Amino acid sequence: MALLVVGSVAFDSIRTPHGQVENIVGGSATYFSVAASFFTPVRIVAVIGEDFDEKQLGVFAGRPIDTRGLERVVGRTFRWRGQYLGDMNEAQTLETQLNVFERFAPKIPAGYLDSEFVFLGNIDPVLQLHVREQLPQARLVACDSMNFWIKGKLPELKRTLARVDALVINEGEARMLSGLQNLKKAVAEIHKMGPRIVVVKRGEYGVVLFSDGNVFSTPAYPLEEVRDPTGAGDTFAGGFLGYLVQRNDLSETNLRRAVVYGSVMASFAVEDFGLTRLLRLTPAEIERRFHEFKHLTHFEV
Amino acid sequence: MALLVVGSVAFDSIRTPHGQVENIVGGSATYFSVAASFFTPVRIVAVIGEDFDEKQLGVFAGRPIDTRGLERVVGRTFRWRGQYLGDMNEAQTLETQLNVFERFAPKIPAGYLDSEFVFLGNIDPVLQLHVREQLPQARLVACDSMNFWIKGKLPELKRTLARVDALVINEGEARMLSGLQNLKKAVAEIHKMGPRIVVVKRGEYGVVLFSDGNVFSTPAYPLEEVRDPTGAGDTFAGGFLGYLVQRNDLSETNLRRAVVYGSVMASFAVEDFGLTRLLRLTPAEIERRFHEFKHLTHFEV
Repeated sequence: MALLVVGSVAFDSIRTPHGQVENIVGGSATYFSVAASFFTPVRIVAVIGEDFDEKQLGVFAGRPIDTRGLERVVGRTFRWRGQYLGDMNEAQTLETQLNVFERFAPKIPAGYLDSEFVFLGNIDPVLQLHVREQLPQARLVACDSMNFWIKGKLPELKRTLARVDALVINEGEARMLSGLQNLKKAVAEIHKMGPRIVVVKRGEYGVVLFSDGNVFSTPAYPLEEVRDPTGAGDTFAGGFLGYLVQRNDLSETNLRRAVVYGSVMASFAVEDFGLTRLLRLTPAEIERRFHEFKHLTHFEV
Repeated sequence: MALLVVGSVAFDSIRTPHGQVENIVGGSATYFSVAASFFTPVRIVAVIGEDFDEKQLGVFAGRPIDTRGLERVVGRTFRWRGQYLGDMNEAQTLETQLNVFERFAPKIPAGYLDSEFVFLGNIDPVLQLHVREQLPQARLVACDSMNFWIKGKLPELKRTLARVDALVINEGEARMLSGLQNLKKAVAEIHKMGPRIVVVKRGEYGVVLFSDGNVFSTPAYPLEEVRDPTGAGDTFAGGFLGYLVQRNDLSETNLRRAVVYGSVMASFAVEDFGLTRLLRLTPAEIERRFHEFKHLTHFEV
């Protein structure tokens, strides 16, 4: 079984209170793939420009990441420049150069058409739906979205949501999408739009999973230093779906574990800039932190 | 064993998106006492004015709350008027009439001097220390504080902290008190000031307990409707300390359970205005929600 992701590959320039970096490899599909690849083979669908060379492709090398769907076109790769201030809960975008991403029309290689697990990264909901419709064998399709699409393409986003099983979304965006302030009511409204599983990301406050009437809430791992939150959400989604695919088990018990594995992966990602920490992460470290999450949250009844 | 609380008794006028009330009984010592009284006898030290009559005293009646330390003086009771907007995470104070609270000099009745567990509610740190020094038999002294004292009486607050075992404080105030943004670092700094137990309240995001190198984090109970957050923090503290006293057990295992019982009590308090929900709460409801917290946070390793 393989996990397909469609999303962005980008060059990011990031400044946080802990330092700054220029033109490092980022993008939703990148963070997702690298995180998920610790658990299961991944198939990536994204677009890069001529400036994305062998060195940059190295982030995918030596991992079970199939890059046949990584299309290289004439032009420059998507570039994003942003900064985090104060409590680092929100990125300020300083510059966005869409470049080749502007005309991104995801092409699903023939070898990907049997994908059973799919993550539709945060791209135009019209493209998300287009990808989804090409994957009739998908057993679990999850997607992400953001304020930009909720404000600008709500009818299109709702058509996509009607065709997905799971939505992985930030808390503020769950409220914006539903028009409701209370989280339980907001999620009830989102369930009506389609997704039976809703995963609400709360940044440093953790994650809440709503599925089939169950609610599971886990805090984030308390870190001494968050150096760069970029990609944390996609890294979470990669760990979450990667673990589900590895186990091939969509029970409530396993969904909960998957949320914790996603949280584990995100907690590592933010320890250093960009993909730095994920690229030197080991399975033993993942297991150790999974058990630390248990210690963090466990109480005796 | 008894639990002593010193704090305010007040008349609150509150407006939230769900309604408004005028001159209902509130105050930190009130919420704390009522919540703790579900677990253990409570001794209250506070001041009221001539306008606080038998009807209002009814909130303490029929519960194991010793009101010998509730001093009635000439004048009007402390009054607070506030409102909550939008996500209701923060109260806006519209009016404060200190009245008899302005000259509050807590008097500990002779019968209270053997108190082993103490909660110093959010009052002038000079008064907190004064109370603490009169209770040499105290085994666990916890206190609360707020931005007003951190800004205005930091040296005095630090002298109080040096003499307490536990600090129960809002997340933003933990950051302000320590001058550090990162929560783990902030708490490490607060430990140095005295308290070996630090309980950080995060409102709708739950609570984090730091004690002897352990970290326990629990989310808040997800409610469909938060009608009035007033008193949630003091209600939490009442449940937390009340349970500890009931069990007479300060182990890490029991501290964790106490944090959950505190969270249970706070989750009920916010379901209705003022003390309304707490006053009709039953022990069976508390137990049921405690087990719901287990279901909310449990995952299999």
